[in-house]
Amino acid sequence: MSHELPFINANRMVADGIPYPDYTAAMASVEAGGTTWFDWWDARASEYEEAGERALDDGHERSAGEWLWLASMSAHYGQYMWFHEPERREAGQRRKTDLYDRAAPYVYPAGERVELPFDGVTIPGFLRLPDGGGDGRVPVVMLIGGLESTKEESFLFENLCLERGLATFAFDGPGQGEMFFERKLMPDFERYTSAVVDALERRPELDPDRIAVLGRSLGGYYAVRSAACEPRIKACVAWGVCFGMFEFDRLPEHTREALMYVSGYTDDPDAGRRYVEEALDLSDVIGNDMCPVYAQHGARDRLFSMAHVEALERGLTNTSLVVDVEEEGDHCCHNMPTLTRPRMADWLADRLTR
Amino acid sequence: MSHELPFINANRMVADGIPYPDYTAAMASVEAGGTTWFDWWDARASEYEEAGERALDDGHERSAGEWLWLASMSAHYGQYMWFHEPERREAGQRRKTDLYDRAAPYVYPAGERVELPFDGVTIPGFLRLPDGGGDGRVPVVMLIGGLESTKEESFLFENLCLERGLATFAFDGPGQGEMFFERKLMPDFERYTSAVVDALERRPELDPDRIAVLGRSLGGYYAVRSAACEPRIKACVAWGVCFGMFEFDRLPEHTREALMYVSGYTDDPDAGRRYVEEALDLSDVIGNDMCPVYAQHGARDRLFSMAHVEALERGLTNTSLVVDVEEEGDHCCHNMPTLTRPRMADWLADRLTR
Repeated sequence: MSHELPFINANRMVADGIPYPDYTAAMASVEAGGTTWFDWWDARASEYEEAGERALDDGHERSAGEWLWLASMSAHYGQYMWFHEPERREAGQRRKTDLYDRAAPYVYPAGERVELPFDGVTIPGFLRLPDGGGDGRVPVVMLIGGLESTKEESFLFENLCLERGLATFAFDGPGQGEMFFERKLMPDFERYTSAVVDALERRPELDPDRIAVLGRSLGGYYAVRSAACEPRIKACVAWGVCFGMFEFDRLPEHTREALMYVSGYTDDPDAGRRYVEEALDLSDVIGNDMCPVYAQHGARDRLFSMAHVEALERGLTNTSLVVDVEEEGDHCCHNMPTLTRPRMADWLADRLTR
Repeated sequence: MSHELPFINANRMVADGIPYPDYTAAMASVEAGGTTWFDWWDARASEYEEAGERALDDGHERSAGEWLWLASMSAHYGQYMWFHEPERREAGQRRKTDLYDRAAPYVYPAGERVELPFDGVTIPGFLRLPDGGGDGRVPVVMLIGGLESTKEESFLFENLCLERGLATFAFDGPGQGEMFFERKLMPDFERYTSAVVDALERRPELDPDRIAVLGRSLGGYYAVRSAACEPRIKACVAWGVCFGMFEFDRLPEHTREALMYVSGYTDDPDAGRRYVEEALDLSDVIGNDMCPVYAQHGARDRLFSMAHVEALERGLTNTSLVVDVEEEGDHCCHNMPTLTRPRMADWLADRLTR
């Protein structure tokens, strides 16, 4: 693996908001030499940050929100595969977070930063309310990221929910984003989700009887696990199905590297493998009574094979399951987001608003 | 010029809404042989169209609007450089229009199709009103496309205006989109713009004292010409500056081909060149009293050099002019839309809402 150019998923980056010309310019600059992937995006983040600050000075809040968010996304994708320089990755992660915090009041609808003390750490998240949702308590979708995706990265999917009248609450759990610095990957992610449900129930804008969860990639694992353990969750979407680590050997090198990193086992991959195989397995909870599940999967997923979908189908005996497989889809169907992402938002809206 | 793969501007396509994975799949399929650029996008348009129809059946209007719009964009970019098969290009153009007509009620904010009889033809356009604009008459921006860009293609820029409280009215004039079939490129585009102003003044939702115009690429020429001839226009944006055809020899082959096509001189390019050089020249109107002008230009524009900007600066003696030149920008700054497009929307909002 070249550290000048780490594993890149251009489809995912662009689908999450990275401008296509920025992606091509980054690739060209790194391949020409003279800069690294990390440094290129760090500099691009600064350009958007400066544009955002100028816009604030000029009273252009819409542009400020957009540019500070693009700054955050640039910092994010600069660091997301940068495991070999942990200090720089941490700096990039913190910069991403700082930029998103500053963007949040100006994006539309605005994001409100919420910090929930739980179990000796803080669960950080962003609550966004749909425009015109003032006619009572609105439903809310909890959004969970994956291995190196974080609460900031779900922004565009949040918009799909918000446009359909659903509030969103994206948060980082153990091993993710901000919480990584306090707590590494844990087997009991569902306890953090339930702590979030506790907090959402107390919000007067939200309807405690219409709380859903969606998780992406490894977050799909966390979402199903959370729904299986938490009866207050009324609908669950697995955006990419992961039943556990039973196909560890199949995972690409960068994914294994990321797993070791978020688990804190970078220096001992053998122990790390045993740890994640033990920590990540739906078998013990999958038979629970739980809410309806929608599972979307790309048949060409190079991380999680169709065996994960089959395990879910066999295991989910006490609920209804909709399986949405795209034959041409890759991991999380990032190669066809315009077709697949709205379907998940529509399913959630049907469950929560009809 | 290969007719299997015409001139492609990927940055422009993606900035106007074409999904990046669709662009890469189209390129790969055409380069591998077995399909043409036109056919690939025609098929992709059908996929989005079918998804949109299914979404309507399911009551998913947001998704329906999005998918029918993507179908329209796919049909548009399949035909936009397809000059060598006029019948197919016409079919693609009409398909694009039909799909956009069907998308319009479901996009957000919705588009209302308006048809204005004028001078023996019909000016077709779409009016979109900003959400929550019910507190009185709102300002409106008229949007003019370029050589092969049409009213449907301005959708994402319209959203930037609408988010800032400005209504939008995008229309086709002589030589453009639907009107091409009734009337080719004409020297008096400004008369059509004034006919649109007449109609907008009569709309009770709109403020007749706050009407602006923005034109893109060759539309930048039409916008300045219209503003110079129409005192009811209060602000003007040239998204890419074109003063006329004085650099005809500099134009890329596909641009010259497009000019001959929209002028109806495909079979006689020498006469066509004389026609467009005569028809397109700001010299006779540029000294008029007129509203403030904002001109955005990429210094690396391969169609219109900085000489066009200099001519505008010399000529606009009876108004104020803001010149916004991006040193790294290409034609219409399509290679940096996230930075440059919001600036034009902010300038318009400052002129019309402060």
